Amino acid sequence: MTEDVTPPGPSVREIPEGDNRERLVCPDCGFINYENPKIVVGAVCSWQGRLLLCRRAINPRRGFWTIPAGYLELNEMTETGAAREAKEEACADIDIDGLLGIYTVPRISQVQLIYRAVVRDGAFAVGEETLELDLFDWDDIPWNEIAFPSVKWALDHWRELGDASTWPPFSNPPGENGNFNF
Amino acid sequence: MTEDVTPPGPSVREIPEGDNRERLVCPDCGFINYENPKIVVGAVCSWQGRLLLCRRAINPRRGFWTIPAGYLELNEMTETGAAREAKEEACADIDIDGLLGIYTVPRISQVQLIYRAVVRDGAFAVGEETLELDLFDWDDIPWNEIAFPSVKWALDHWRELGDASTWPPFSNPPGENGNFNF
Repeated sequence: MTEDVTPPGPSVREIPEGDNRERLVCPDCGFINYENPKIVVGAVCSWQGRLLLCRRAINPRRGFWTIPAGYLELNEMTETGAAREAKEEACADIDIDGLLGIYTVPRISQVQLIYRAVVRDGAFAVGEETLELDLFDWDDIPWNEIAFPSVKWALDHWRELGDASTWPPFSNPPGENGNFNF
Repeated sequence: MTEDVTPPGPSVREIPEGDNRERLVCPDCGFINYENPKIVVGAVCSWQGRLLLCRRAINPRRGFWTIPAGYLELNEMTETGAAREAKEEACADIDIDGLLGIYTVPRISQVQLIYRAVVRDGAFAVGEETLELDLFDWDDIPWNEIAFPSVKWALDHWRELGDASTWPPFSNPPGENGNFNF
C-alpha cells in the first residue's frame, strides 16, 4: 500500500452528537470508531534467580530483548492473559505471585500490567514471535538491546523487590513516559 | 432505531488474514474493527472516614449508587483519569494514595483500576452523570442500591485496608466475575 491510498473505514475526524471529543467516523456509512487505550499484560519470569528474556521476531523492535507480554484479549482475565503470553512466546508455564507494576505509555495509549512470576520447572522453548530466548543472570542481561523502556523498568523493579512477598505495584519511574531515551 | 435495522460499519464476523481470531469486518470497505478490552479508572474517595457515593443519572443502572469512575481516555495516565472522573462526576479534587484494586469483568471485557483517595477539603457538588451525591458513614451506605458488584468489592476492600499505608492491590473476590448476583 502506498502513502496516498486512503485506508478503508472511518477516516473523517468529527465530534459525534452527544460526545465531547473528536472520533474517526466513516463518511460512507456513519460508523463511529471509538478508540480506547489498550491493555498489555506480561510478566517478569524468573527461575532460580535468573530472568527469562525473549528476542523479538517481529516489529516493532525486531531483534531486541523483551519479557513475555502482549495485548489482553476480549473476555480474558489479566493474569490469564499474562500466562497465555508466556506460553505463546516462551512455551513456558508460569506461576504468578503478584502484580509487579502498572506502567503507562500515554503516547501510544497503553496501560501495561506486568506481573512477577516463576517459570515452572525452569522449562521454556522458542515460541511465536520469538527468535531465541534464555534465562539470564542479572549481570548478563543485554541492557543495550532491551526492546522498550518499560521492560527495563520492570526488570529494575523486580530486582528492587528482592525477596519481598507482598508489595504495592510500581509505576513509571518519575518523569518517565515510556518514550525512548536510550 | 428498531432492532431489525443493520447498524452501520463492520458487521461481518471473519478471521482476517494473518490473524487467529474472528473480528468484525465491514463488507463494503474492508475495515477491520479490532476490539480490545476497555480500561475503567475510578476511586474510593473518603473524607474523615466517610465515603463519597454518587447516584447515577445515566444508564446502565440509573438511580443506583456508585463511586466516581469511567473510561480511561486516549493518551491519559491512569491516576489522571481517575482524578478527572471525580472532577466530572462529583466536582471533587482528590488526592490519590495508592491502587486499591484491579477488578476484571470478563463478560464485558473491562479491567477496572480503582484507587484509594481523599476528597480535598471534603468539597464536592453534583457533576455530570450524577443525580445526587453525599459522604456516607459506613453503616449508612445504601448497600441494596449499589450500581455494580465491583463497587461493593472496592468499598469492602477499602474498609479491609483500615489505616494501612502500603498494600498489594486487591482483585476480584474468589469466584466472582462481576456478573450480578444481588
